[in-house]
Amino acid sequence: MSLMTAEQYEKSLRELKLVVYMFGKRVDNVVDDPIIRPSMKAVAMTYALAHRPEHEDLMTATSHISGKKINRFTHIHQSVQDLVKKSKMGRLLGRETGCCFQRCVGMDALNALSIVTHAIDSKQGTDYYKRFLSYLEYVQEKDLTCDGAMTDPKGDRRLPPHQQPDPDHFLHVVEERPDGIVVRGAKAHQTGAVNSHEVIVMPTLAMRKEDEDYAVSFALPSDAEGITYIMGRQSCDTRKLEDGQIDQGNVLFGGHEALVVFDDVFVPRERVFMYKDYAFAAQLVEIFAAYHRQSYACKVGVGDVLIGAAQTVAEYNGVEKASHIRDKIVEMNHLNETLYCGCIACASEGHKEPGGTYAVNTLLANVHKQNVTRFPYELSRLAQDIAGGLMVTMPGEQDFQSPQTRKWLQKYYQTNPNIPTESRMRILRLIENLTLGTAAVGYLTESMHGAGSPQAQRVMIARRANMVEKKKAAQKLCGIVEI
Amino acid sequence: MSLMTAEQYEKSLRELKLVVYMFGKRVDNVVDDPIIRPSMKAVAMTYALAHRPEHEDLMTATSHISGKKINRFTHIHQSVQDLVKKSKMGRLLGRETGCCFQRCVGMDALNALSIVTHAIDSKQGTDYYKRFLSYLEYVQEKDLTCDGAMTDPKGDRRLPPHQQPDPDHFLHVVEERPDGIVVRGAKAHQTGAVNSHEVIVMPTLAMRKEDEDYAVSFALPSDAEGITYIMGRQSCDTRKLEDGQIDQGNVLFGGHEALVVFDDVFVPRERVFMYKDYAFAAQLVEIFAAYHRQSYACKVGVGDVLIGAAQTVAEYNGVEKASHIRDKIVEMNHLNETLYCGCIACASEGHKEPGGTYAVNTLLANVHKQNVTRFPYELSRLAQDIAGGLMVTMPGEQDFQSPQTRKWLQKYYQTNPNIPTESRMRILRLIENLTLGTAAVGYLTESMHGAGSPQAQRVMIARRANMVEKKKAAQKLCGIVEI
Amino acid sequence: MSLMTAEQYEKSLRELKLVVYMFGKRVDNVVDDPIIRPSMKAVAMTYALAHRPEHEDLMTATSHISGKKINRFTHIHQSVQDLVKKSKMGRLLGRETGCCFQRCVGMDALNALSIVTHAIDSKQGTDYYKRFLSYLEYVQEKDLTCDGAMTDPKGDRRLPPHQQPDPDHFLHVVEERPDGIVVRGAKAHQTGAVNSHEVIVMPTLAMRKEDEDYAVSFALPSDAEGITYIMGRQSCDTRKLEDGQIDQGNVLFGGHEALVVFDDVFVPRERVFMYKDYAFAAQLVEIFAAYHRQSYACKVGVGDVLIGAAQTVAEYNGVEKASHIRDKIVEMNHLNETLYCGCIACASEGHKEPGGTYAVNTLLANVHKQNVTRFPYELSRLAQDIAGGLMVTMPGEQDFQSPQTRKWLQKYYQTNPNIPTESRMRILRLIENLTLGTAAVGYLTESMHGAGSPQAQRVMIARRANMVEKKKAAQKLCGIVEI
Amino acid sequence: MSLMTAEQYEKSLRELKLVVYMFGKRVDNVVDDPIIRPSMKAVAMTYALAHRPEHEDLMTATSHISGKKINRFTHIHQSVQDLVKKSKMGRLLGRETGCCFQRCVGMDALNALSIVTHAIDSKQGTDYYKRFLSYLEYVQEKDLTCDGAMTDPKGDRRLPPHQQPDPDHFLHVVEERPDGIVVRGAKAHQTGAVNSHEVIVMPTLAMRKEDEDYAVSFALPSDAEGITYIMGRQSCDTRKLEDGQIDQGNVLFGGHEALVVFDDVFVPRERVFMYKDYAFAAQLVEIFAAYHRQSYACKVGVGDVLIGAAQTVAEYNGVEKASHIRDKIVEMNHLNETLYCGCIACASEGHKEPGGTYAVNTLLANVHKQNVTRFPYELSRLAQDIAGGLMVTMPGEQDFQSPQTRKWLQKYYQTNPNIPTESRMRILRLIENLTLGTAAVGYLTESMHGAGSPQAQRVMIARRANMVEKKKAAQKLCGIVEI
Repeated sequence: MSLMTAEQYEKSLRELKLVVYMFGKRVDNVVDDPIIRPSMKAVAMTYALAHRPEHEDLMTATSHISGKKINRFTHIHQSVQDLVKKSKMGRLLGRETGCCFQRCVGMDALNALSIVTHAIDSKQGTDYYKRFLSYLEYVQEKDLTCDGAMTDPKGDRRLPPHQQPDPDHFLHVVEERPDGIVVRGAKAHQTGAVNSHEVIVMPTLAMRKEDEDYAVSFALPSDAEGITYIMGRQSCDTRKLEDGQIDQGNVLFGGHEALVVFDDVFVPRERVFMYKDYAFAAQLVEIFAAYHRQSYACKVGVGDVLIGAAQTVAEYNGVEKASHIRDKIVEMNHLNETLYCGCIACASEGHKEPGGTYAVNTLLANVHKQNVTRFPYELSRLAQDIAGGLMVTMPGEQDFQSPQTRKWLQKYYQTNPNIPTESRMRILRLIENLTLGTAAVGYLTESMHGAGSPQAQRVMIARRANMVEKKKAAQKLCGIVEI
Repeated sequence: MSLMTAEQYEKSLRELKLVVYMFGKRVDNVVDDPIIRPSMKAVAMTYALAHRPEHEDLMTATSHISGKKINRFTHIHQSVQDLVKKSKMGRLLGRETGCCFQRCVGMDALNALSIVTHAIDSKQGTDYYKRFLSYLEYVQEKDLTCDGAMTDPKGDRRLPPHQQPDPDHFLHVVEERPDGIVVRGAKAHQTGAVNSHEVIVMPTLAMRKEDEDYAVSFALPSDAEGITYIMGRQSCDTRKLEDGQIDQGNVLFGGHEALVVFDDVFVPRERVFMYKDYAFAAQLVEIFAAYHRQSYACKVGVGDVLIGAAQTVAEYNGVEKASHIRDKIVEMNHLNETLYCGCIACASEGHKEPGGTYAVNTLLANVHKQNVTRFPYELSRLAQDIAGGLMVTMPGEQDFQSPQTRKWLQKYYQTNPNIPTESRMRILRLIENLTLGTAAVGYLTESMHGAGSPQAQRVMIARRANMVEKKKAAQKLCGIVEI
Repeated sequence: MSLMTAEQYEKSLRELKLVVYMFGKRVDNVVDDPIIRPSMKAVAMTYALAHRPEHEDLMTATSHISGKKINRFTHIHQSVQDLVKKSKMGRLLGRETGCCFQRCVGMDALNALSIVTHAIDSKQGTDYYKRFLSYLEYVQEKDLTCDGAMTDPKGDRRLPPHQQPDPDHFLHVVEERPDGIVVRGAKAHQTGAVNSHEVIVMPTLAMRKEDEDYAVSFALPSDAEGITYIMGRQSCDTRKLEDGQIDQGNVLFGGHEALVVFDDVFVPRERVFMYKDYAFAAQLVEIFAAYHRQSYACKVGVGDVLIGAAQTVAEYNGVEKASHIRDKIVEMNHLNETLYCGCIACASEGHKEPGGTYAVNTLLANVHKQNVTRFPYELSRLAQDIAGGLMVTMPGEQDFQSPQTRKWLQKYYQTNPNIPTESRMRILRLIENLTLGTAAVGYLTESMHGAGSPQAQRVMIARRANMVEKKKAAQKLCGIVEI
Repeated sequence: MSLMTAEQYEKSLRELKLVVYMFGKRVDNVVDDPIIRPSMKAVAMTYALAHRPEHEDLMTATSHISGKKINRFTHIHQSVQDLVKKSKMGRLLGRETGCCFQRCVGMDALNALSIVTHAIDSKQGTDYYKRFLSYLEYVQEKDLTCDGAMTDPKGDRRLPPHQQPDPDHFLHVVEERPDGIVVRGAKAHQTGAVNSHEVIVMPTLAMRKEDEDYAVSFALPSDAEGITYIMGRQSCDTRKLEDGQIDQGNVLFGGHEALVVFDDVFVPRERVFMYKDYAFAAQLVEIFAAYHRQSYACKVGVGDVLIGAAQTVAEYNGVEKASHIRDKIVEMNHLNETLYCGCIACASEGHKEPGGTYAVNTLLANVHKQNVTRFPYELSRLAQDIAGGLMVTMPGEQDFQSPQTRKWLQKYYQTNPNIPTESRMRILRLIENLTLGTAAVGYLTESMHGAGSPQAQRVMIARRANMVEKKKAAQKLCGIVEI
């Protein structure tokens, strides 16, 4: 079973015994919880599309360890083409789900570990890479969804891990046992956490000798003893609990984030991929970050949905031929395709790392992500411009159903007689969902902070731009003799 | 009683017999409804602040008809200083409420009618101005809140009123009686409608002879027979129904919009301020729009709140000294004060109309509003940048209360030990409220479309920029002899 | 003679014995030098317009010391209306000249000294204010043009004046004499220096006790012994030396800057307005800067010219009705009027200082100038977009005159047969002048750095935005009890 | 001789008998003319670099017709890798020359003709492709520089070619002869025209049957009888005539444009690649435009120079560690690399056309060029911000040489004692050159209008964005049943 179906995936989740809290209560049935379920359905699309012939090329790959056909989300990139396909897969799924489909973070963690465990071993003669490959084979064979867990709560942000008043503000090893380690701490903002079979933990920043207990990476089943999930709430989340579905906007899919608490959790030795190797923490962070910044290719797909929604509402409103509307649609496409260029270019300019894994171009991946922190906001603004104010003043679905008000709403929200008022209502709710509602969490704020806040990318851009070469070029042209 | 207190205002609302629907049901007690009440509290601030000595100068004025001290929201501007104070009052109330306080639209309607009824009479020898003054005296004496109702549903936007398939898509007169008229139609996006004592109706666009039945302006008590209100729903509206209050973000105030249906409503003659005077519809629209575009001064005040929240969360996160954070705060202030310049300048450049009413500079009022369609979006983006991702991944208030999860949240969301975790939670929820939640409706989408969508301002800018003068200046300087 | 004519002004300049160098040579006849003369003509417009009845209200004022009618450029602002008129005068002259007319800097120096000499005296019992008033009376009576000289070369920018390796990198007193002081140093980027009768020197930054020899302000005739001017060169400056005039773009006016060297220059005591009063250096800088940032009102007038030129070339090209062209013209107007709002608002929000002088609102003046560092660049980009590529590929005037090429150029650059090809050529050259040529120096780079570089305004915005008030407003709304 | 050296190239130009006019006079010695020569030197770099081993991979290719090693500028792209290398070659040369190196336009014309002549033949059974291959072999063998000439003067822009009052406003065939055709008209804005051996003419827009005489494409030697060149003038062009070189900024290279007049020029049949095939004019324009929009990869290289210059001047000014300066450098890099992503992505997403030629992705090539119309302007603004005002107020080189002023300039323009004042002067002049001077013509205005003005790209973006797919995606997610 190298390729699960969406149904098999859902079934496999039911077998997990996750400890999940939401709205102050333990969630007994995670899979069917109405708030969580749309996010599970989004992950399930990563399984479903892999079975569709028209998407096979993007959604699947051939394992470099088993030679079997596997889901690309469990694949280690073996070529520049693989990297490019990853970007296209992201756009495809973003367009199909209109939200965060959550599974990329595990793929990025696997690929980053593929490079870094190999690097540690090369330098230090350890056997992390072997452990990793064994784990990878398991993930590929079972077609698992992994959560890649990096972001610690960080406590006082001016202090390194070992100086924190509360030592647990960065996840760390609290006990070494012959057969493994015991860890404590938490990982925040974990996308898709409770839809994952596995959680792969990595350190969140560069470390020094004193932080060596914090320089730890490992993988665990998501329902390992001692792990607790506390669901984050989203704008408009409880609309999913209401009667009807229209007001949800995206009536099919969603995303989620959770705080994941590790309360003295045991990790068996063979699942440890880094420990005390503080000198490699920075590399792991940087490589994971570059892969994950590329992954924001998905927002191009969500942008496709928003553009499609904007064009639809313009047509429903009967204004699609106004020159300013057409120009705004062009601008939306222009910005969205500029984003696309970023995720294609950082892949196309990728290279082979010593162990054989292909890495993206770090500079361009950061440039891409930096644009992702900007353009979706402008796309949202333009979509709201095109949509009109009704998007935020329209009565709810229940008013459209109520015998007392239905007649007024049907009458007064009619535009083109060929367009059902309900269709207009639905598309407006979708734009609300993407720009203010549950999907705005992913399309806007996560675009800002996911895979590192904007300033993190700026630091990397400063580091990776070849300023020596640029200065020489300038000085030569104006006749400055080198000084 | 020229100046009501907030308490008197609330009491006066209880006496209204409004027909209000929300979520498919009739709302029995509008004033105490938990969704609506925060918006009533925001309007109440326009009464409360008028009694505070430190705000008296901005919040009150001397009536030019009675000579009494009145609330500025019922005042007809008698000087440039009045116009400037109006802008400042808007900023003040925006800062105090962090949302739309709704009462400006009635003030703008009164002032627009003061000019236009005078203009019609001057041209046509009618007695609208006299009727208007009589009505104004009543409003000032009772210190009433008026809803200014302009935006019709518009149906097929390519057709003028009289050609609409459904003639009611623009509000119009369906019957003339000896003592008045009967009107039918609806007004959409009516801000603060159910918190108002009165509704003042105006046409929504320029009209021709064929549309004369649509060229109608009048005032009615908000609970006149035949008027029905259907409440619009907002992002995160139902958080107000939840236990706790923190997740609301703004725990005190809110705004609302409603669809107002006029189902054959009778208007007595003395309350009619325009009828069949189609040639003046354009002027009324334009003057009201200019006043109301100035009124977006309020968003500067909401911007103050957002900037204050961003600075607060930066301090709570312990990053307020990072140069990029400081620079983003500067940028937020810069944009917000640029907005402020617009609402001050259009007032400062105001002028006296024939009847004595002072009007704002139309070009600059449109320029101001155009910036309002842009800067709050960028301010929101910057605030989200500063806030960090926790804003959208933080568990709900109930999780903070639950014995099972409280300890984890308190522990892992702690930053500076001097800052209660709950305070950090509160300020993040406020930013969420302003950029994604109920207040985003007012701060973003209403900033976009309220008082006319961006393209409406561009049309006015094109019309009011003196291109002849500019071309002459250019041609003279490069030696082109006039052609 | 309180109001000179343009002719008298020119004549008065001929009487000065300035030491001016340009292109490596002493300039014998400054007034008639073809490079310099257009800048003199621009200053002359500040005299000429004062005699035109339609501009009298803006261009002249009543002296608060003599009661006589004076040129506003020598006036001390006595009211908010004076401040507003100053902004309007700037726009007017910018539109009339299409360039920097240079005289504002002296006006701003006079007004800043009016406030600060009064403040020093109040604190220290000195008699600077009396000296200043006496000097002011002379300037007003003679209707003189003053250069306000602030910017020192600054040497190593990380060091304060007294620690500079070369002590002259900030202008300072090198000798005290019974009847005055001797100063040494230089002032860079001096706009209109050789068109001025007087030079008023001020310190360039805040100072400490150790810098007291640098805390000096004074006025001198521009041809005082020991002062040398070295002219800066501008993009396209030598086109003014070519046969023909069309390629100059602006065939009438220009601007200039010079390095002004003070080589042990004696200043009589009565012309010294500050010396060793280091504690007041910051205030003088800040107040002058605020006034001078307001003065960038002039760029709105230059923007008028650029917009007029863009509209003209669009018409000549026959594309003025294309929707994207119209929209770009709207955007140009929108940005230009947003700038206008800034210079009006900082004036309208002005206040009276202790000595009676009216000062602008510092925060808003800085906000205004910050926008000036951005919008003219975007206006230029839009103008180039509208103009088309011919602006930079068009042959020179001599080719249009040459019998061998004239026929081709006339034939192939013809668009609308009613438009002379030469007119199209002229307007394109004007846009080139404003966006790449001599006027771009003033419209772009000077807009960036004049009156302080952008970061200087950001520092002031950070200082003047009331963050305490903003934080309180935010915290109150989300229920944070003050901590 | 498949690869000329730079010296051979220069020598080959001397053998041409071009008819060139500039400043109203015939230019006798084009190669050594001081205004033109720097542009020839820039083209020469396309020859010189092809001989450097480190650039061989980018600068050369293997001819698909001869199998020989050829200069990439004469190559027909045979793979996606070829397309990517073309983009990188553009950036390399942009960085090496700091200006427009002119030779890309011929390469783009050759590749466009390779596709379109093949397409015409496939449809119509003509032999254009054979003629083209024969011509291509000649160009590759001789390593020629071709001018690709597309832009007609266009006269009245609202009229198609055949309705123009002056029929010559679009180049057209005026006579058919047994052995060829005679053409009349002109091509404007011809980059590098007088540095080219050949000129390849193409129609400038889509055509209809009535325009068939205008649907003509052909190649000619640049000195064919009847061709006249009239040089365009550039900002600061005559600085190249001055003594000294520093004030030129870029002391090595430049660009040029010319109007090329075809006054009844005979074209032999074998050099005609399209005639009367009006139905293919649109395709030729579109494909050429896509290639040529990709070619704006060069501006990334010029951006490298500008960034290097900005960093250099920041260091010379001693402010390179200020956080706002560092942030502006990051922003410059971010924008420049975003541009880079565009030219890489449109190449990486290229595809094979029927005849074997690889074409770029049209949508992304247009998106790339659209960004080129924006970002260089912002990069220029940032560079001017970093440079400081001295860039436009600095005296000329002659003043630095003059014994009377040299001492003052050396003294007062000194910053860090380790930096020669002349170096600071040189780097400032380079920034002036790139943002206001001769290179600004290429870096700014040509970035705006070259390869089509911004609106041309917007039209293509509108056409190529798959709106049907986007609308479907949106409608599915909000539950709209297809209508």
